[in-house]
Amino acid sequence: METDVIVIGGGGGGYPAAFRLARSGYKVVIIDPKGELGGNCLFSGCIPSKTVREIAQMVWRNNRILKTSIRPDFSIVQDHKDKVQETRFIQHREELKEFKENVELIKGTAKLLDNKTVRVDVEGEGREIEIRGRYVIIATGSEPVKPKFPGSEFAITSDDLYGYKTNIRKLPDDITIVGGGYIALETATILKSLGYSVRVLVRSGRVLKGFENEIVETLLPLLDINIMYNSPLLEIRKKSENEFEVLYSDEKGNKKSISTGLVMLATGRKPVLPEGASGILALDSKGHISVDEAMRTNLPNVFATGDVNGKAPYFHAAVRMSVAASYNIMSNGVATDYVDYKSIPVTIFTIPPAAYVGIMPSEAKKLGLSVIEASYDMKNDPMAQMYDEMGGVLKLYFERGSLRLIGAWIVGVHAGFVINELGQAVAHGLTARQLAEFADQHPTTNELVAYTARKVL
Amino acid sequence: METDVIVIGGGGGGYPAAFRLARSGYKVVIIDPKGELGGNCLFSGCIPSKTVREIAQMVWRNNRILKTSIRPDFSIVQDHKDKVQETRFIQHREELKEFKENVELIKGTAKLLDNKTVRVDVEGEGREIEIRGRYVIIATGSEPVKPKFPGSEFAITSDDLYGYKTNIRKLPDDITIVGGGYIALETATILKSLGYSVRVLVRSGRVLKGFENEIVETLLPLLDINIMYNSPLLEIRKKSENEFEVLYSDEKGNKKSISTGLVMLATGRKPVLPEGASGILALDSKGHISVDEAMRTNLPNVFATGDVNGKAPYFHAAVRMSVAASYNIMSNGVATDYVDYKSIPVTIFTIPPAAYVGIMPSEAKKLGLSVIEASYDMKNDPMAQMYDEMGGVLKLYFERGSLRLIGAWIVGVHAGFVINELGQAVAHGLTARQLAEFADQHPTTNELVAYTARKVL
Amino acid sequence: METDVIVIGGGGGGYPAAFRLARSGYKVVIIDPKGELGGNCLFSGCIPSKTVREIAQMVWRNNRILKTSIRPDFSIVQDHKDKVQETRFIQHREELKEFKENVELIKGTAKLLDNKTVRVDVEGEGREIEIRGRYVIIATGSEPVKPKFPGSEFAITSDDLYGYKTNIRKLPDDITIVGGGYIALETATILKSLGYSVRVLVRSGRVLKGFENEIVETLLPLLDINIMYNSPLLEIRKKSENEFEVLYSDEKGNKKSISTGLVMLATGRKPVLPEGASGILALDSKGHISVDEAMRTNLPNVFATGDVNGKAPYFHAAVRMSVAASYNIMSNGVATDYVDYKSIPVTIFTIPPAAYVGIMPSEAKKLGLSVIEASYDMKNDPMAQMYDEMGGVLKLYFERGSLRLIGAWIVGVHAGFVINELGQAVAHGLTARQLAEFADQHPTTNELVAYTARKVL
Amino acid sequence: METDVIVIGGGGGGYPAAFRLARSGYKVVIIDPKGELGGNCLFSGCIPSKTVREIAQMVWRNNRILKTSIRPDFSIVQDHKDKVQETRFIQHREELKEFKENVELIKGTAKLLDNKTVRVDVEGEGREIEIRGRYVIIATGSEPVKPKFPGSEFAITSDDLYGYKTNIRKLPDDITIVGGGYIALETATILKSLGYSVRVLVRSGRVLKGFENEIVETLLPLLDINIMYNSPLLEIRKKSENEFEVLYSDEKGNKKSISTGLVMLATGRKPVLPEGASGILALDSKGHISVDEAMRTNLPNVFATGDVNGKAPYFHAAVRMSVAASYNIMSNGVATDYVDYKSIPVTIFTIPPAAYVGIMPSEAKKLGLSVIEASYDMKNDPMAQMYDEMGGVLKLYFERGSLRLIGAWIVGVHAGFVINELGQAVAHGLTARQLAEFADQHPTTNELVAYTARKVL
Repeated sequence: METDVIVIGGGGGGYPAAFRLARSGYKVVIIDPKGELGGNCLFSGCIPSKTVREIAQMVWRNNRILKTSIRPDFSIVQDHKDKVQETRFIQHREELKEFKENVELIKGTAKLLDNKTVRVDVEGEGREIEIRGRYVIIATGSEPVKPKFPGSEFAITSDDLYGYKTNIRKLPDDITIVGGGYIALETATILKSLGYSVRVLVRSGRVLKGFENEIVETLLPLLDINIMYNSPLLEIRKKSENEFEVLYSDEKGNKKSISTGLVMLATGRKPVLPEGASGILALDSKGHISVDEAMRTNLPNVFATGDVNGKAPYFHAAVRMSVAASYNIMSNGVATDYVDYKSIPVTIFTIPPAAYVGIMPSEAKKLGLSVIEASYDMKNDPMAQMYDEMGGVLKLYFERGSLRLIGAWIVGVHAGFVINELGQAVAHGLTARQLAEFADQHPTTNELVAYTARKVL
Repeated sequence: METDVIVIGGGGGGYPAAFRLARSGYKVVIIDPKGELGGNCLFSGCIPSKTVREIAQMVWRNNRILKTSIRPDFSIVQDHKDKVQETRFIQHREELKEFKENVELIKGTAKLLDNKTVRVDVEGEGREIEIRGRYVIIATGSEPVKPKFPGSEFAITSDDLYGYKTNIRKLPDDITIVGGGYIALETATILKSLGYSVRVLVRSGRVLKGFENEIVETLLPLLDINIMYNSPLLEIRKKSENEFEVLYSDEKGNKKSISTGLVMLATGRKPVLPEGASGILALDSKGHISVDEAMRTNLPNVFATGDVNGKAPYFHAAVRMSVAASYNIMSNGVATDYVDYKSIPVTIFTIPPAAYVGIMPSEAKKLGLSVIEASYDMKNDPMAQMYDEMGGVLKLYFERGSLRLIGAWIVGVHAGFVINELGQAVAHGLTARQLAEFADQHPTTNELVAYTARKVL
Repeated sequence: METDVIVIGGGGGGYPAAFRLARSGYKVVIIDPKGELGGNCLFSGCIPSKTVREIAQMVWRNNRILKTSIRPDFSIVQDHKDKVQETRFIQHREELKEFKENVELIKGTAKLLDNKTVRVDVEGEGREIEIRGRYVIIATGSEPVKPKFPGSEFAITSDDLYGYKTNIRKLPDDITIVGGGYIALETATILKSLGYSVRVLVRSGRVLKGFENEIVETLLPLLDINIMYNSPLLEIRKKSENEFEVLYSDEKGNKKSISTGLVMLATGRKPVLPEGASGILALDSKGHISVDEAMRTNLPNVFATGDVNGKAPYFHAAVRMSVAASYNIMSNGVATDYVDYKSIPVTIFTIPPAAYVGIMPSEAKKLGLSVIEASYDMKNDPMAQMYDEMGGVLKLYFERGSLRLIGAWIVGVHAGFVINELGQAVAHGLTARQLAEFADQHPTTNELVAYTARKVL
Repeated sequence: METDVIVIGGGGGGYPAAFRLARSGYKVVIIDPKGELGGNCLFSGCIPSKTVREIAQMVWRNNRILKTSIRPDFSIVQDHKDKVQETRFIQHREELKEFKENVELIKGTAKLLDNKTVRVDVEGEGREIEIRGRYVIIATGSEPVKPKFPGSEFAITSDDLYGYKTNIRKLPDDITIVGGGYIALETATILKSLGYSVRVLVRSGRVLKGFENEIVETLLPLLDINIMYNSPLLEIRKKSENEFEVLYSDEKGNKKSISTGLVMLATGRKPVLPEGASGILALDSKGHISVDEAMRTNLPNVFATGDVNGKAPYFHAAVRMSVAASYNIMSNGVATDYVDYKSIPVTIFTIPPAAYVGIMPSEAKKLGLSVIEASYDMKNDPMAQMYDEMGGVLKLYFERGSLRLIGAWIVGVHAGFVINELGQAVAHGLTARQLAEFADQHPTTNELVAYTARKVL
């Protein structure tokens, strides 16, 4: 079988390139073991978790503001989540139909033979086919790391909690989450907002490593969750269907135990490589496929996009990379589209959320960049006041002299929305003056952008 | 009494200038009849109405998604609203304290004597003082037009409904709103979402005059409210405490009547001018004080900002104008800061909302501008799917050739947030390519910006 | 013969696309009757004319400033000109060598058979070949209109004067140029600066039609050339080898005559279409091939770039269009690169020169755009003072409100250089403030850009 | 005497602020010992040196291209130079007249008493006056360092060579310039182009310290001047009116001697501080007045602009700083205008010239910035070909990812013009794609900007 472009992986790193190339008449074959478009994000990641999150936040707000005590049955929440996922699967199927002249989706597992050849074990057909393409895009994503330890089989991961049509439709009152990354904290605040009692067990003395310290310090007090630091997990023992004993070591090294109804492991993610890839493609120290800003790997004609390259493991980044790969394929690997990783926003969808984009002060310091900082307290944001969620801060960092916005973060209500305006500004070098000259819509939290920029003028 | 700058009006057109000037050491006297900072917007406008709106939307969402039937007591809603207003009044008092060296707030009514002199009838003191300032900023805002007709005294306005500590703490089940502007429609959808039965009586054959036709046509079907077109109001008769008979004329000119529990008039707003102003200041055809982009009136040293100049009657516009006036005062009326009216976003906070910014196609056509249009259906927006609010459209208009974004509108979930990113782009001439290169945060409705821009590339 | 892309015409509209496509591995065949890269511009247009111009300007300056009376032998000037052309031909041959894997240049004349097929009459081989390509770019340029009238065979055109290795190596003292376009005026000032006596015979009452009136009015007094308006040419009679009688009609319709040593016709240019094109391609009212901003003609797979499409008949525009065509071919005709015609600068290389870019006031008025204008008198420019060429003006037009630079013109020394900075600003929407914040290098004429922008702040 | 603003120094750091403040109605007193506006730059710096340079370049070109042997009498060159200076002095006097209501120029020497008081020794009147101003701008510039050594009194400086109405109207054939900075090299190439025999004596092993190495290495071979490295000057002995013996030490430490007709010292410049300044103002390690980007010194109300603060010792930088100071004075020292030092272009006006702007690769490396570099050989620039000055290179540095232009340099013909377009791009964050989309005017050297940017796309 011959095609122009082989795309391995039907998620955010894969289908945008496929559709863009198809729009320009290229023939594309997408290979995905699910036989559906939509990767981790849709199947068990951002889409379902944020669906649950939006409901959790709504319930929490309703209860606080109107003094109600709504506590929805978790199965209703999960049903709604499944419906949203279903909606998107259908949407993707329709997109596939629209491009059916040029795009074929094969359900199966791909093995990379060389820079132009892929062998596919076609699912349900018991046969292998060999596909030759002028280009290959690898967009195979990442998966949760599930560490092995005594009783690890009793724990679930975020895939189990958020997966499409998951069996988990009911939750016990007491839940233990293991890990200190953003998935652990998001899930902790989501479940807490829905009325569950949640504790977070963290191996080390801090959470959200890799996030700027000041963001973490601003966010944590607002989350109001029970985080147990320096508490490495040792073992899980099953007591009954909904009762587990979690053994961990406390700060002094003493073995301790907790009784809980459910244990969720959220201990990081790792890249998923197609078979054959690691032999011929250069990898970085963490096993991701090495790429440049044009998504080019060390092999001519092979591109890698999305989580698998580890550059910016977020859906929106994957989509952007996928589009870049499509243009760079049309120009035969001569780079014409480059991804600016540092202007990609990152949001932690806890309740309340936090978000940042660009260069953070600790990095600016390392780079020797001199910045002018301006900040705004969320307690003065009208929307924060309306929701009575007045915790948080917005900080803007302007390059001294040019006043170009080089970084920004926000902790508090609507962080995930505001970060887009800020990211657009960082990406295109807008200055304090330009932000100040714009009149952000009142009353939206984005107003703080203009207000804060005006502080330096 | 001598000062540097006299600011007449303590709202969004007034205090930002006062504080900016104070920050640069200028002495400022603000005169406001309420004796509080915060104008219409805070007292009875955008802040209280949007507070009620956010609650209404939350309740409506909760009921739809979780199949609950919450119907909050209106007094709880109003209490919350009052609390938010209170919070902001306190915030403003603290700001005044911070600038107390340079800013004095006088509770009273100002009369403009000449371009440097104001006489104030100080409230509660029964005395008049004369203040001379090197500059005067007029920021006296606007007020609802309350037409006179038989029974008009039985109707309320939005000031009554949303005013701080209003007596209206309880609503009848059946409510009639008269008018076809954005206040009428916002209030109609807010009350409907809170469970009330609402009808809208409109004099002419269309609503939202002044808004682009395509926006209105996209929005209206989503609002699902009972709009009675071509139905001019004739008379209101009071039947009992909570029962009114509304007499109107139908399309054929026949007199008709409705029985309703409350009538709210939302029939436009008009500028409020200080006494003495109309004699010495040039006005436009609708009675607003004429200004240029630098907020200068025909009189040297006199500036007019906010609703009173009619250029862009929105709080965020007023704040921007106020800041501009402050800079132009520091440079002695030599313009150094100009307001770009056409890049100010406008949002109709109906449920769902609509928003636009920049040049709309009908105007582009008039100007002879050739545009490339791109659109995105909200039904594919993840957040629209999460909230099951899938109606609406995003449209972007790029100048042909340069691909600069010159206009945009969005109808649907989060319109008020997304319009900020779009407005920032319109204000600073970002192109389709620049929007496409940015990776908007997933999953936020802002993602559609990048997705839509990518359609033209 | 099969190829990816057929490029008809080896000039500025042709070779940049060829090289860009070759860089991305596309096979390209260029067909040009000269068998050399470089079109009119190099062979007989901007390159030779500006070479002569630079020498003329240098001589003129030298004579004025140092009170010398240099009058170079015209053959030395022409030798230098030929050498410059030779240098560029060699440069192009080297570029061809560099891309020899992918680009083939055929000397011959192309006939368009359909949207993928071209027949070439190969020069010197007496044979025809048929080439099939997936795409065709037509970049056949334009040529001088040479009107027919009694004695027209005695007149030369600019092609004769500036052509590579032209026979014209010596000029008579008295020269008559017929026409009022930029070529006529450029040549008149060039020859005048070299010491010749030049008159310009213009049919109508004005020159430089199509140029903004204010530019022409500023420029003309500085040129100090003898322009005879309303003097249509009737006949040329040859008296002897270097003596011609030029018969024309004066304003009152009386036949007049002048004796002159050489007559040059500069009466406009017209597009050159390959045979077969007019039958299958849509043309505009002046016979140019109709294209959109992506260089697409009405036929799929056929693009037209450079003078032949009449959009912006300048070499730099042709190059830009050619590059755009190359990207749009790589994306299979789905537009990804658009040319912004209105931000292409135009320079009249008279001595002194004039240049403009963007929207001129007369057009702004038509569009209903409100502008803020700022100007600077060249007499205060240090470089104008150094060269004692103090005539001229710089004008900037900013959009009211946004202060975006939407148009600019400059008459005077270094106009051709300064227009680039201005054009870059117009193209990318820079504002008065941005121009003002930049410190243009002192002492260069570009300084006026910052100085003038600062006038509106 | 009372005023709003006292400006000490009538040069580029002084008068722009004075005029801008005057335009806004501020009263300003300028104090300058020359009693004329125009500082070093006009009196003995960039204006006269570049006037001579332009003539030298013109003569050199004329001789090369037209094979002439012009060698102008130096007195004619100096007369022309004086006339240009005269023109500018007159221009400034007219500007003073225009602002006579608000600006007063006092001829005298200022002594700073405190942050609001200046004592002036009024020249020619033998009296002192005390002026009190709300603000003080110190713009006292810099002066050549004239080292003392045996015979140093026999050497001239650039002030002597270029000063207004200088006595130096005639030059000997053999000239020795001591120093390796830009003034030394500029003057060497200027005089060489005018036909003089010039040698440059440099203390150390390299010239143009502080300039990026690659620029120097590209430029030096093109200058073709006799540079004697590692040759510290020991003594000058006068032999006769136009004959001097220059004693220096060679690389091995042996004393050597040269006979020459004139010795010019160009061994650096140092700040000129008003009396009283060093006692109350913070200075940097080289004795400049310390300022921030808003031109603020450590004393409230005192600003320092131009060479005296050492931030960017160029006229155009001084003007920009002066304007910034004026805005920051109007806002009472609250910064509203910031100078972006790193986007100020720097040109070495040798023949040929060199220029750079932004971050050079050696600094980018230090900062850890990853760049994409693109370069263009001047030998392919049409104008370089026209002038037969084909040496040189253009280099652009784009930030990896964003493709924003962060630095650029050019060695070769028209460097000083081209750097403006590049500087505008650096200042406002334009990207490779934006530069590539613009069609620079053909044929101007600026075309290389677009051509080079297109190489990375």
